[in-house]
Amino acid sequence: MGLSGCLGTSYNVTMDLRTIGEFELIKRLAKKVSDRESQTSIFRPAVIGIGDDTAVFHSVERTQIFTTDTMVDGVHYQIGLSSWWDVGWKSLAVNLSDIAAMGGYPLYALVTLGLPAELQVRDVETLYDGLLDCSVEFGCSVVGGDIVLSPVSFITIAIIGATSGPVLARSMAHFGDQIAVTGNLGASSAGLILLRDPQALNTPEVKFLRSVHCSPQPRLLDGQILLANGVGCAMDISDGLIKDLGKICEASNVSARLWAESLPIDPVMRMMFPSECIEIALGGGEDYELVFTAPHAVIQGLQGKLPREVVVVGEITHGPSHDVTLVDRGGRPLHVDSTGWDHFQ
Amino acid sequence: MGLSGCLGTSYNVTMDLRTIGEFELIKRLAKKVSDRESQTSIFRPAVIGIGDDTAVFHSVERTQIFTTDTMVDGVHYQIGLSSWWDVGWKSLAVNLSDIAAMGGYPLYALVTLGLPAELQVRDVETLYDGLLDCSVEFGCSVVGGDIVLSPVSFITIAIIGATSGPVLARSMAHFGDQIAVTGNLGASSAGLILLRDPQALNTPEVKFLRSVHCSPQPRLLDGQILLANGVGCAMDISDGLIKDLGKICEASNVSARLWAESLPIDPVMRMMFPSECIEIALGGGEDYELVFTAPHAVIQGLQGKLPREVVVVGEITHGPSHDVTLVDRGGRPLHVDSTGWDHFQ
Repeated sequence: MGLSGCLGTSYNVTMDLRTIGEFELIKRLAKKVSDRESQTSIFRPAVIGIGDDTAVFHSVERTQIFTTDTMVDGVHYQIGLSSWWDVGWKSLAVNLSDIAAMGGYPLYALVTLGLPAELQVRDVETLYDGLLDCSVEFGCSVVGGDIVLSPVSFITIAIIGATSGPVLARSMAHFGDQIAVTGNLGASSAGLILLRDPQALNTPEVKFLRSVHCSPQPRLLDGQILLANGVGCAMDISDGLIKDLGKICEASNVSARLWAESLPIDPVMRMMFPSECIEIALGGGEDYELVFTAPHAVIQGLQGKLPREVVVVGEITHGPSHDVTLVDRGGRPLHVDSTGWDHFQ
Repeated sequence: MGLSGCLGTSYNVTMDLRTIGEFELIKRLAKKVSDRESQTSIFRPAVIGIGDDTAVFHSVERTQIFTTDTMVDGVHYQIGLSSWWDVGWKSLAVNLSDIAAMGGYPLYALVTLGLPAELQVRDVETLYDGLLDCSVEFGCSVVGGDIVLSPVSFITIAIIGATSGPVLARSMAHFGDQIAVTGNLGASSAGLILLRDPQALNTPEVKFLRSVHCSPQPRLLDGQILLANGVGCAMDISDGLIKDLGKICEASNVSARLWAESLPIDPVMRMMFPSECIEIALGGGEDYELVFTAPHAVIQGLQGKLPREVVVVGEITHGPSHDVTLVDRGGRPLHVDSTGWDHFQ
């Protein structure tokens, strides 16, 4: 049976996946993808998309980048707090953020859905709407994937992308580099606190912070501009600035000093969480801004070229201990208890 | 703390993931990958492997293929019936089977593990041993992935591969083509029945069938030979010959007739399941042999070139109804109740 018959009068709003089965669900989602692509100008269509054993595409770029990221229900999202649309958007956005962190652009995505049989068909369709809205916004083409039965819902996306030649690497921070970020920190983490707080009022500020958490914006343009303007080292901030900068230090065999007064703490977050705002900004995670390092002259040369103001937040120092220290204006060390986020522990 | 210190005297055989944390686990698995790669001649090392926001590689081939497949605990495997080594091997093998079905060769893989916090570290390491044994055997390089907390364990692998130019496509079956398979059918499905049967004795035959199920062999060489010798249409048999051939018929807008007497029923399976052997061979699934179609002359030209004998099992017929019918030697239709496997239903 084709798709059109199923979306007609027989459509049942409480229909679960068991009712329509795996192959009918794949047909519906594949139609969503092709409908969307026919309304959009795809950067470079695949030779074979959904429907064969693999996707097939013609490679043009020499330097290709390849990444995957997963979100699990109850761990990375919670239905009821986030909408299915949000989950779809975010599942792709966090992958695109990794592409951004290399200075690249996305080409093709494979989407794997692990779904409980009792899940509603319309929820899966809403998830796909969010995912496809993100794919259109950032020029990434969904070319296949897998749908499997699972007692807990999860989404894994794998993306192939490319760069103009070099990449932004974690291992390229050097002594004397300045450390900078592409935007404000802490809003996403505050949004998560507010999502979990049933007492929180539905003010514009609360809505803003929740929205930053639920539908992050991958900094693809920023990464490409950094790469084109001589920056060599970057990563995206997913586990919090301190923890992620620590990974740069380890990969580059350097240490780092952050200037507390220079941190671009999100102003709405600061207003709502005045006493914890530095801790949240440093350790909260899921900002999906880029942190990068470069010599002073390179960072000066970036002014006015990025969508938002570049904020210098510290400097790369010597040291095989890979320490990230926070200092005040006088250079005195400050203690902030923000260790970021570690799975399992 | 580096890896070496952790694998020394402090190694605890009952240590779970909570004890060592996500980042220490990643370090251990990354070391396994690099140790293995240093002992093997990698076809083409990545520019950046595990440890940055994405993997980076240099693309040489014009035609690239891209696929993903997932296995979920309790759905696609069951620990206790399968070993962790088997799960690791199979998770990569089923992905490589999709690469084989296009006539391609694998290049790079990303491995996503969803893991409960109480899982033992050594079980994850054993899983990785199986996965890396398979990657070395078939020349696929693990270049990254994701490790996430999940209440149920699952493995998702995404692979990028390539072909010499064209591909084997599901949509290329034509009226008059012969239908052939690359090997015997039904052993995997029988192996699953025997894994679930606590009464089954541990005879060599039972071990053989279980092993076919637990550690399938992707037919990469077969697919490459088919492509190089003029075959245009193939897929791998994962849901059972009848169901998968139905997908070829739908993609190619043809129908198919299978000759019951010609089916290469696995002889060990036939011996153990004499009354159900045709049903198991046609509908059981997870054979991971390739089914392909080509004109008679092309199939004649394949004799002696493939690792195993090519077995012609039927012919492509006219018909927009995409029927797969089974007939006896006299052309009379037979009924076999084997609908293959459909998730959710």
